[in-house]
Amino acid sequence: MKLKNDLILRAVRGEKTERTPVWLMRQAGRVLPEYRKTRAKAKDFISFVKNPELAAEVSIQPVDILGVDAAIIFSDILVIPEAMGLPYKMIEEKGPYFEKTIRTEKDLAQLHVASGEELSYVTDAIRLVKKELNGKVPLIGFSGAPWTLFAYMTEGSGSKTFSKAKKMLYTNPTLSHSLLQKITDSTINYLRSQISAGADLIQIFDSWAGILSPEMYNEFSLKYISKICNAITGVPKIVFAKDAFFARKEMGDLSCEGISLDWTMNISESRKLIGETKTLQGNADPCLLYADFATIKRETEKMLRAFGPQRHIANLGHGLYPDTETEKVKFFVDTIKEFRF
Amino acid sequence: MKLKNDLILRAVRGEKTERTPVWLMRQAGRVLPEYRKTRAKAKDFISFVKNPELAAEVSIQPVDILGVDAAIIFSDILVIPEAMGLPYKMIEEKGPYFEKTIRTEKDLAQLHVASGEELSYVTDAIRLVKKELNGKVPLIGFSGAPWTLFAYMTEGSGSKTFSKAKKMLYTNPTLSHSLLQKITDSTINYLRSQISAGADLIQIFDSWAGILSPEMYNEFSLKYISKICNAITGVPKIVFAKDAFFARKEMGDLSCEGISLDWTMNISESRKLIGETKTLQGNADPCLLYADFATIKRETEKMLRAFGPQRHIANLGHGLYPDTETEKVKFFVDTIKEFRF
Repeated sequence: MKLKNDLILRAVRGEKTERTPVWLMRQAGRVLPEYRKTRAKAKDFISFVKNPELAAEVSIQPVDILGVDAAIIFSDILVIPEAMGLPYKMIEEKGPYFEKTIRTEKDLAQLHVASGEELSYVTDAIRLVKKELNGKVPLIGFSGAPWTLFAYMTEGSGSKTFSKAKKMLYTNPTLSHSLLQKITDSTINYLRSQISAGADLIQIFDSWAGILSPEMYNEFSLKYISKICNAITGVPKIVFAKDAFFARKEMGDLSCEGISLDWTMNISESRKLIGETKTLQGNADPCLLYADFATIKRETEKMLRAFGPQRHIANLGHGLYPDTETEKVKFFVDTIKEFRF
Repeated sequence: MKLKNDLILRAVRGEKTERTPVWLMRQAGRVLPEYRKTRAKAKDFISFVKNPELAAEVSIQPVDILGVDAAIIFSDILVIPEAMGLPYKMIEEKGPYFEKTIRTEKDLAQLHVASGEELSYVTDAIRLVKKELNGKVPLIGFSGAPWTLFAYMTEGSGSKTFSKAKKMLYTNPTLSHSLLQKITDSTINYLRSQISAGADLIQIFDSWAGILSPEMYNEFSLKYISKICNAITGVPKIVFAKDAFFARKEMGDLSCEGISLDWTMNISESRKLIGETKTLQGNADPCLLYADFATIKRETEKMLRAFGPQRHIANLGHGLYPDTETEKVKFFVDTIKEFRF
């Protein structure tokens, strides 16, 4: 089906756009009262994620309410560990928790490579969203990067240092690589099934990229992101490695169309490091949306000018914070949509 | 008194040293069984910090046990908010917690500029350590950077995003600057009293440097660190702004002798950005000390070679993690002390 608004797809491919397109990480989330209402229909976060109708509903909400140029499928990066045989719980105000973690070869042997079929609740939700959107805007599919998933699967929960996860890289690199490869194979299957179901664009989230040294990052993360980028064809891909300022040059060589930046990364320096052949995405500080309207406008326009009129998809440098006022989010989106170079 | 081992002081001033000196952030800490034994004598963390005899005891332990080239006074960065009139609790496994936080001009008016005299428990501990060390190695004094203290005083606790603290920067920059100035004035008084009591060297810790954009960092953090560096004379100063990769060039212009790097910062790139006139400190990943002895040796020697024989103080890129084996810490220190270029 031909899309009515294909700005993001053109921008990511480096084709000319009339204006800078915009979407927001966590746009399908607690920042919208409508999301909180739908969320209340499910007994817990994981049942919510596993319910295609509810997931589809919240994926579409921001397109209508915020006027963004793409929907992103509502889901969680940790569905992959779950599909591989490592279930988790989402604990209120604490985050994800894995009762069992991967520590040994035996633990690893008990995991299987996900075929993507285990995750039919995601592909079903994608089909529902695509049908409901009816070509209005593109739909973004996503997955976690293998290192970030590895971090949760070995640490067992969120952490300031992820020292247990990193300990495994240092003490058992062989086991680490085997687990990373298994996650990578699962992710490739999963992303392919998202594309078959209708995802128009893929984003890979490496949320814990910034806690590794540059060398460790190359060896234990970028290598596997690169395998995914090489394996996934047919739709454009964006890689978001939060805090991995040190890997920007290497990210310029990935077989992907877009690189997402966080707000600590200077825009012109990032362009120089990454090169001219990638579309850059980002990179406003989510806390900017706490400011008054005049400040939001000034800083957003400054950001747009720094990226320039082409090869940019406007976004935040991280997900929306849940206590942001909806009016401020709308104003940020409108500022971008109304701006002309 | 003349120091028997002044390697760190010579290195930080850029004078020639026979070998690379070494100390470790959090060397006076839970990694040592002796520390845990002394810690058990106090009823809670804050009484421990406020007891000069106990604080002195744990400050000296690593000099004897690990063989490091400096002691650092055992204390906590949050003694400054407390001295300004904002008390806190240290909650087991959770970290610091402030019952009251600074939100308004009225809250700010209730704080006073610390004279340094409120913190006589720290200066008393410094005197005890200096006496006990008897010139064996230098003693490092320290404080938190104003932005990091501000972050705790406005957020009220640790946080992944410090979104409340950052919200204040965006919504009330005037109040933010007033609070930062008050913290800065307190810190200058505090550091001067540490130097009067015998501190041979000062380190400023900006633990939450990495969550600000480069522009916000210049305005709300580096500016105040610079005021402190200008005001403190007589002893060398080291600035450690964790994750502030984007500010390395600007840090080269600070009126300080040393810049401490974390493990995400490439060594030769950092040298280029910071310039030749500063001593660099760091920057091993604390998780390296989980590895086997051969890996620790190989990676430590690689780090030493990358920094080169002069103008380097070996350290980690962050504090020691409490579950590190003491033997591994000793081995890291010994590897550095035995290495010759």
